[in-house]
Amino acid sequence: MIRFALIGAGFIGSVHARNLAAHPGIDFALVYDVDRARAETIAVRHDARVASSLDAIFTSSEIDAVFIASSTNTHAEYLERAAAAGKAILCEKPIDLALDRARSAVAAVTNAGVPAMINFNRRFDASHAELRANVAAGEAGKVEIIQMTSRGPSVPPLEYIKVSGGQMRDQTIHFFDLLRWIAQDDPVEVHVMGAALADPRVAEAGDVDTSIALLRMRSGALCQIDSARRTGYGYDERIEVFGSTGMVESGRQRFRGVSRYRGDKIVEDGLHAGWFERIEASYYRALDAFVGAVQGGAAPSPSLDDGLKAQIIAEAATQSLQRGAPVPINW
Amino acid sequence: MIRFALIGAGFIGSVHARNLAAHPGIDFALVYDVDRARAETIAVRHDARVASSLDAIFTSSEIDAVFIASSTNTHAEYLERAAAAGKAILCEKPIDLALDRARSAVAAVTNAGVPAMINFNRRFDASHAELRANVAAGEAGKVEIIQMTSRGPSVPPLEYIKVSGGQMRDQTIHFFDLLRWIAQDDPVEVHVMGAALADPRVAEAGDVDTSIALLRMRSGALCQIDSARRTGYGYDERIEVFGSTGMVESGRQRFRGVSRYRGDKIVEDGLHAGWFERIEASYYRALDAFVGAVQGGAAPSPSLDDGLKAQIIAEAATQSLQRGAPVPINW
Amino acid sequence: MIRFALIGAGFIGSVHARNLAAHPGIDFALVYDVDRARAETIAVRHDARVASSLDAIFTSSEIDAVFIASSTNTHAEYLERAAAAGKAILCEKPIDLALDRARSAVAAVTNAGVPAMINFNRRFDASHAELRANVAAGEAGKVEIIQMTSRGPSVPPLEYIKVSGGQMRDQTIHFFDLLRWIAQDDPVEVHVMGAALADPRVAEAGDVDTSIALLRMRSGALCQIDSARRTGYGYDERIEVFGSTGMVESGRQRFRGVSRYRGDKIVEDGLHAGWFERIEASYYRALDAFVGAVQGGAAPSPSLDDGLKAQIIAEAATQSLQRGAPVPINW
Amino acid sequence: MIRFALIGAGFIGSVHARNLAAHPGIDFALVYDVDRARAETIAVRHDARVASSLDAIFTSSEIDAVFIASSTNTHAEYLERAAAAGKAILCEKPIDLALDRARSAVAAVTNAGVPAMINFNRRFDASHAELRANVAAGEAGKVEIIQMTSRGPSVPPLEYIKVSGGQMRDQTIHFFDLLRWIAQDDPVEVHVMGAALADPRVAEAGDVDTSIALLRMRSGALCQIDSARRTGYGYDERIEVFGSTGMVESGRQRFRGVSRYRGDKIVEDGLHAGWFERIEASYYRALDAFVGAVQGGAAPSPSLDDGLKAQIIAEAATQSLQRGAPVPINW
Repeated sequence: MIRFALIGAGFIGSVHARNLAAHPGIDFALVYDVDRARAETIAVRHDARVASSLDAIFTSSEIDAVFIASSTNTHAEYLERAAAAGKAILCEKPIDLALDRARSAVAAVTNAGVPAMINFNRRFDASHAELRANVAAGEAGKVEIIQMTSRGPSVPPLEYIKVSGGQMRDQTIHFFDLLRWIAQDDPVEVHVMGAALADPRVAEAGDVDTSIALLRMRSGALCQIDSARRTGYGYDERIEVFGSTGMVESGRQRFRGVSRYRGDKIVEDGLHAGWFERIEASYYRALDAFVGAVQGGAAPSPSLDDGLKAQIIAEAATQSLQRGAPVPINW
Repeated sequence: MIRFALIGAGFIGSVHARNLAAHPGIDFALVYDVDRARAETIAVRHDARVASSLDAIFTSSEIDAVFIASSTNTHAEYLERAAAAGKAILCEKPIDLALDRARSAVAAVTNAGVPAMINFNRRFDASHAELRANVAAGEAGKVEIIQMTSRGPSVPPLEYIKVSGGQMRDQTIHFFDLLRWIAQDDPVEVHVMGAALADPRVAEAGDVDTSIALLRMRSGALCQIDSARRTGYGYDERIEVFGSTGMVESGRQRFRGVSRYRGDKIVEDGLHAGWFERIEASYYRALDAFVGAVQGGAAPSPSLDDGLKAQIIAEAATQSLQRGAPVPINW
Repeated sequence: MIRFALIGAGFIGSVHARNLAAHPGIDFALVYDVDRARAETIAVRHDARVASSLDAIFTSSEIDAVFIASSTNTHAEYLERAAAAGKAILCEKPIDLALDRARSAVAAVTNAGVPAMINFNRRFDASHAELRANVAAGEAGKVEIIQMTSRGPSVPPLEYIKVSGGQMRDQTIHFFDLLRWIAQDDPVEVHVMGAALADPRVAEAGDVDTSIALLRMRSGALCQIDSARRTGYGYDERIEVFGSTGMVESGRQRFRGVSRYRGDKIVEDGLHAGWFERIEASYYRALDAFVGAVQGGAAPSPSLDDGLKAQIIAEAATQSLQRGAPVPINW
Repeated sequence: MIRFALIGAGFIGSVHARNLAAHPGIDFALVYDVDRARAETIAVRHDARVASSLDAIFTSSEIDAVFIASSTNTHAEYLERAAAAGKAILCEKPIDLALDRARSAVAAVTNAGVPAMINFNRRFDASHAELRANVAAGEAGKVEIIQMTSRGPSVPPLEYIKVSGGQMRDQTIHFFDLLRWIAQDDPVEVHVMGAALADPRVAEAGDVDTSIALLRMRSGALCQIDSARRTGYGYDERIEVFGSTGMVESGRQRFRGVSRYRGDKIVEDGLHAGWFERIEASYYRALDAFVGAVQGGAAPSPSLDDGLKAQIIAEAATQSLQRGAPVPINW
């Protein structure tokens, strides 16, 4: 049994709490939030206890691992404190919006030698994982083109946009990680065209809500990722890997299976309402992979270094947007 | 070059005329119709000549083959006359609505030894043919269940219904033939439930417009065929063969490939408007198969005997409808 | 909070236990099984207590409702005891394989006036429920043909087959219930053709493993249900409602969303491995509906009477199989 | 009746010949090819005559229209000669690989005032045309992202590659035209990343075989077009228009409709073998549109000017490939 403390009891924290409680290899012991009432709600629901303070978590000999799901600006500090305390760490992305700060936090964790994993949960989506396994097994041959679509149903609140780091660091970063993971390769050049087409106030906040990123991989393969903050048809996520002998696709997924035949049309149930409905199951699988790695003495994956690398791509992508020109990515 | 005469210049005759004109192995020489104006229209369009009479066709030494596409009640006579004249014969189904008359016509053709084929063109539909090839190659294992759907967009005129021989002999018969062909087996029992659900006047004409036929094959396999004369969504044809190791389906086909994503629905282009749009291409392929057989000295398939056998099933099915009970099929 | 006792801790009991524990409106208090060890496993996992006896459940003032998930031959007795004790009841199907015994148990529950529901959970499958709502809203017009497919991946153990009551009472019964529920109508005639095509030993046990049921509804609509105990491709469930203006389908569902394009083929992820994976989510929804009804003072649905009615159809279907002839269903 | 002469009797010329012969509003009178034997084959097949020379076409008072389907380097000259002769013109793309030469030819035709159309036949594909109509009708709202995929089954012969003008001018140009037509807008910036991933000899010929073009439209909308010369799975063409309220897709099309269910996979029939199978029907529709415009006195569309504009985009795209940087498109 891994004895877990959860830091952060917001929406995504409550999702993690449910999974921590349901996992047979986990004892969900403590939960902490700056808003104590939120922590209590979760504690009551899942028979956990509210930690009186963060120190009560980091100094407790009865806690083996922490799940960092608090606000982004706390991640780096908590990573360092957890590492100093010798806890295993599962951390929500990103590490820190400032790349240098992220690097120093990762260095601290690495030096401490504790198991640590960045929660890029899409790697654990059953279809994306199968796609990657197929590509790794050579079902598409040598990878030549990768296409990804990432489109959410509605523009987040402007307050969120302003502190999010921008579309590349906040939304597209998940797909930069998937790109590295699926292609088993790194991009060396990125060019992003973008604009605030969904909401002009996004431009006022210095960001875009619609963009296409074009990347060239070390291997020479090409990649395209389109990102949109608002669709008229729910949540749209799609990956396609085209190679020398075939193509593998993790396609759009319908939320229900009914078809209606009328006149010259067939009306099908559409896509999931939001990202959460689409990838909810991957959160449990990510947690389970972390547990398996920690129990088996293996390094959890994706590592914090994977988190850094996705962020490095997002930085270059953001620069490309600002300059209106391709930007090299130096590793 | 096979020198062809076409008998019958109605809608389906005009389709055959186009194919006769387009086929590189055919010299489309003569066309005949009781309505000479219709024959002339076709003759002009395709550089053929109007036959002055049926005798002019049957006695001509410049005609190798006849395509009988005139009204049903003439088929048996024309089959016999063509056989007596030594012509190769491609004949629209059915041979004759009266089974005894059909038998005697087939006997005459058989005795004459001329190549003859019944135009069950669905056997030449690319998807149905692939389904059958897959089943024959064992992709579904031993056949256990066959499902067929045959649904047309609108109830034919009552005048047509009255002389059609009924839904079993007119519509479902195509699928009785497909059943024998795909299963490479004959049914030994049939039970049909049916009613005039689309148009009560069909009941007054002594017929049904909606039915499900349940059949048991000699091998023990089971079959279900649902037939409807009117849908609200175009033409619906589907075949599914379930066997001991898998299932093969020749599915519904969309007439165009556009999808529209709006809200929580996806609106796809629907099915073909009518049977003709769905299976048009099979007419040419059927003709081509006839030409190939005649040129190669092989017996064309499906044979007139296949036509008789489908009719025998349709007879039993019609009896079952009338009796409200299963009926054995004696071969 | 509804205080629940679970009777039966086998496979399906463990599924119910998980849902009882997860439901916010339920206090999962007691669990009982003839095999005490099984009950204890569940009790430990979900923080419930093991009931020392059935009496300890029925006489406890701290239990509001019982979930009967024990072996079929105990259902009737437990229904009566629970009714006598004034407990609300959620009961796995069937009520009793002997129709008379089932009737008397239902009468006892009805007389006691306790809320009771038969667990036909497929009514709570999101797609089937949407299909029914669409049909009820008139999206297909007047119902004319209903098609259902029910095919499981493998023949159950012969020991199970022997006590199951036969394919109609054990497997097809779920679809007899769906038929009544979707059509809002009852069948008045049924004819089933069946055979032991998957495993000849099923025939020795007096049963079939492959069948097609043909039914005529009071409204005149026709229905076809094919049932198979063994497929080579996982679990296959499909419903299609054809009506006067359109068709609505709750189609086959893929278990994952990956497509592989190679040569002239596309290899898609297939169907779910088994029935449980396909309809797992419906168990929670069924439980939730029961809770909602009990809390709201409404009669839970489907009622025990619905359970009886599906069984009446299954009886007639079984007779039809035995006689090789259509059988009227008298209500 | 429009009396037509066909110039060019190669593969695509033979396709046009068949359509010219089949069209009821056309008298297919003359055919010319530098290889007289090829012209004769077509003349015999379709009851046309071989023109003794090009002059015999341009000076004939019995020819109303010419179809220019000869080799690319002859188009500009023949356009000018046909215009001078007052013939209506249907011309295969491109006008001329040299943009200046293309401009002068178009100017000559414009000055002559004859009806002229560039044969961008994909505009007449039923699905693409429906997509465009849907977008024009506002079904996707304001256009924000356009995605196109253009992938052919195999790298053309190197000899062809060398004279083709490169992937942008030869392959992607069709989609530059579709982009303008569907978006009813022009791109103002293009950046292409490409490489010879399918065959290194393509790089030696100074070309790429795999590329992604990123474009920004005047409206601010973004576009991505990926082009590949070789797939392992046939011909892949797809267009998707994402807008403010929805998305419309003209999707991949299967060449046949059979599905095979085995184990945990479904094996579907795949894509068409080549571009010709996919878009064959659009050639007739393009010809029909030309006939309709000429007969109705309207300007045929797409115009030669549309041909020039697609070429202007292809020029900028080619420059971008060479420079490795985005290139503005000045109109």
